[in-house]
Amino acid sequence: MVVIDGVSDRPVNGKTPLSSAKTPNLDKLAEMGINGIMDTVSPGIRPGSDTSHLALLGYDPFKYYTGRGPIEAAGVGIELKPGDVAFRVNFATVKGEGTIFDKIVVDRRAGRIEDTSDLIKAIEDELDLPVKFILKKGTGHRAALVLRGDNLSHEVTDTDPKKVGRKVKTCKAKNKEALETAEIVNVFTQKTHEILEEHPLNQVRVAEGKPKANALLLRGAGGFTKIKSFEEKYGLKLAVVSATALIRGVCRLVGGEVIDVEGATGNVHTNIGNKIKAAIEALDHYDVVLLHFKATDELGHDKNFEGKTKFIEKLDSYFKEILNLDFSKICLIITADHSTPVSVGDHTADPVPVTIVHDGVRVDDVKKFSEFEVYKGGLCRISGRDLLRIALDLINKAKKFGA
Amino acid sequence: MVVIDGVSDRPVNGKTPLSSAKTPNLDKLAEMGINGIMDTVSPGIRPGSDTSHLALLGYDPFKYYTGRGPIEAAGVGIELKPGDVAFRVNFATVKGEGTIFDKIVVDRRAGRIEDTSDLIKAIEDELDLPVKFILKKGTGHRAALVLRGDNLSHEVTDTDPKKVGRKVKTCKAKNKEALETAEIVNVFTQKTHEILEEHPLNQVRVAEGKPKANALLLRGAGGFTKIKSFEEKYGLKLAVVSATALIRGVCRLVGGEVIDVEGATGNVHTNIGNKIKAAIEALDHYDVVLLHFKATDELGHDKNFEGKTKFIEKLDSYFKEILNLDFSKICLIITADHSTPVSVGDHTADPVPVTIVHDGVRVDDVKKFSEFEVYKGGLCRISGRDLLRIALDLINKAKKFGA
Repeated sequence: MVVIDGVSDRPVNGKTPLSSAKTPNLDKLAEMGINGIMDTVSPGIRPGSDTSHLALLGYDPFKYYTGRGPIEAAGVGIELKPGDVAFRVNFATVKGEGTIFDKIVVDRRAGRIEDTSDLIKAIEDELDLPVKFILKKGTGHRAALVLRGDNLSHEVTDTDPKKVGRKVKTCKAKNKEALETAEIVNVFTQKTHEILEEHPLNQVRVAEGKPKANALLLRGAGGFTKIKSFEEKYGLKLAVVSATALIRGVCRLVGGEVIDVEGATGNVHTNIGNKIKAAIEALDHYDVVLLHFKATDELGHDKNFEGKTKFIEKLDSYFKEILNLDFSKICLIITADHSTPVSVGDHTADPVPVTIVHDGVRVDDVKKFSEFEVYKGGLCRISGRDLLRIALDLINKAKKFGA
Repeated sequence: MVVIDGVSDRPVNGKTPLSSAKTPNLDKLAEMGINGIMDTVSPGIRPGSDTSHLALLGYDPFKYYTGRGPIEAAGVGIELKPGDVAFRVNFATVKGEGTIFDKIVVDRRAGRIEDTSDLIKAIEDELDLPVKFILKKGTGHRAALVLRGDNLSHEVTDTDPKKVGRKVKTCKAKNKEALETAEIVNVFTQKTHEILEEHPLNQVRVAEGKPKANALLLRGAGGFTKIKSFEEKYGLKLAVVSATALIRGVCRLVGGEVIDVEGATGNVHTNIGNKIKAAIEALDHYDVVLLHFKATDELGHDKNFEGKTKFIEKLDSYFKEILNLDFSKICLIITADHSTPVSVGDHTADPVPVTIVHDGVRVDDVKKFSEFEVYKGGLCRISGRDLLRIALDLINKAKKFGA
């Protein structure tokens, strides 16, 4: 399953990056396969990349998604227990006087700090909270926090103001049951700030002219959900080739393997060839391989029509290799997790294109992988929540319901 | 959102009123937009105009619809409380001997009586029931009844036989819990008949050669459902331009504003120009405006192919004004609440055409607003329950689900 993140658009003067790009290989695959459009989560619902990937892997996000936190936690290898509350954490830089909630966020990534191990160690050693906590580093400025104790609730708001120049937000309870959790988050936020502010590493950073990593910004609180592993659910082994932490987290949440690829960056400079090679090789060891490209989404967020068009063309040029797969054995899906129109600069609910290539699919008349053509194909309009099941049926891995 | 009630058909000799009608303006809108077919409630479910309009406004009728009564009650301005049972009421004319349940309905609208205020006043003054009741007049012969008390249930049958020449029906309980309610309805029906029969206004009517308004026929029992207002649910203000009581009731049920238009009649003589003008003006004050035309449905019920075709052409001629809207700001939807094929003379579940015009929609190849063309469009086949969410996404009023 090749997921080209946010590849589809709304037209600008009748054209989209995908419809404008020269994509001979994608077009050939569309011609070889069956095509359609897809609401990854549900019609009119704007998916995040996390909820949409859950859907693409056959997990109903309305049932299994409580927030981004649990996915970040899974991404760094923390296994949640019932009652836990998980958060995505950013090491950030704040400035000003008073408590942390009086201070202004000046850098949400603390100068893209590379190693936060010592800072986390200090917090583990010095922080005293009324509940247990697990703080684990991700790549760069990223981390995950899990609070573990009785009577916690994930119905709390973010402390991350999401934009620089704004004050750190006070965590608020969304209902009575979450009052204690909100209080703990606020204590956590203040105390970790005090520990980080005085940490020797930050004195070194200041001396080097780097911004202090003196605050932890929390967002995406979520709780435990009982979720069957991919292997348990389908009897199949899953691997993901993606450089994007959130997608890697979704994969780990469902017990899949994350494959690291040299030169995979999650942006336009990613090593497309290496990633495709790794995904194809992974098919020897795994039943389902999700190959994810992020740059199309980034360029959509940046409202960069030309850049998105060019990256799609670049991506397509590497897809020649995919054309030569043995489609009597392999079922190939090419799709996206959501649209990220350059005209909007954010995810939208516009359906995504989907092409399935496999011996035996009902090949249709579509000859171009574009928003203006695929909807005419034999899949019509499907739901992302059904996609994996449709593919498993095509490869005869589906069970009969009834006699 | 323009709702052309029951506009679509099943073909007769390969043609439908919509496909036969010359509709240059509707066709132009189809050409400018994205098209498809839509199951307003669910595939194969024949919608009433009430359930379908709930769906069109984004309320799942399977969840929120318990019967026509609550919508009629909302239409006349009664706010239901938990435990209430609401009915649609007709002032009618019965003749014969014995109790009301021995008598024959000779006019279901009591000669289309215009003012029932005095009759309702008499009932309020004289009727003694074991529970509280609210009886409120609608337009003409129409009224709504709400029973308020402990242990009531809306699981009771109609007393309205729906056809003249038949006896008034005894209200029956659909289960044990509703036995008391059914008994109260029967007492209500008999006692109001006695009060009305003797009322001076009816002596005057007889002297004038008019039928007595001597019976209340009840139908569509329904109960309270907790329903968020449109503004609460979407953060948007809703207005409806419709002369049809049921549609006005649905609008009021969800807290929308009903706009009165001079010359709006809910039939072929309606002032189309005034209604369109009022709807466009309403866009200055409301976020979502539903403009409803009823005559197409009536002509479908009448099995009048030619009349329906002509009314569609007349309607289309007024749509020129709609063509000139600023579609960078306005998202236009043209659709129906259900099909009312002239070959059937009633609502059917055949999907309805839907066209969405807005800057940024993925314009497709459809060039005619007809049952035989719109299904080829870029929306494919959608559900009426998703329509509003799809539109809100297109105007960037949708929230992201996930990160």
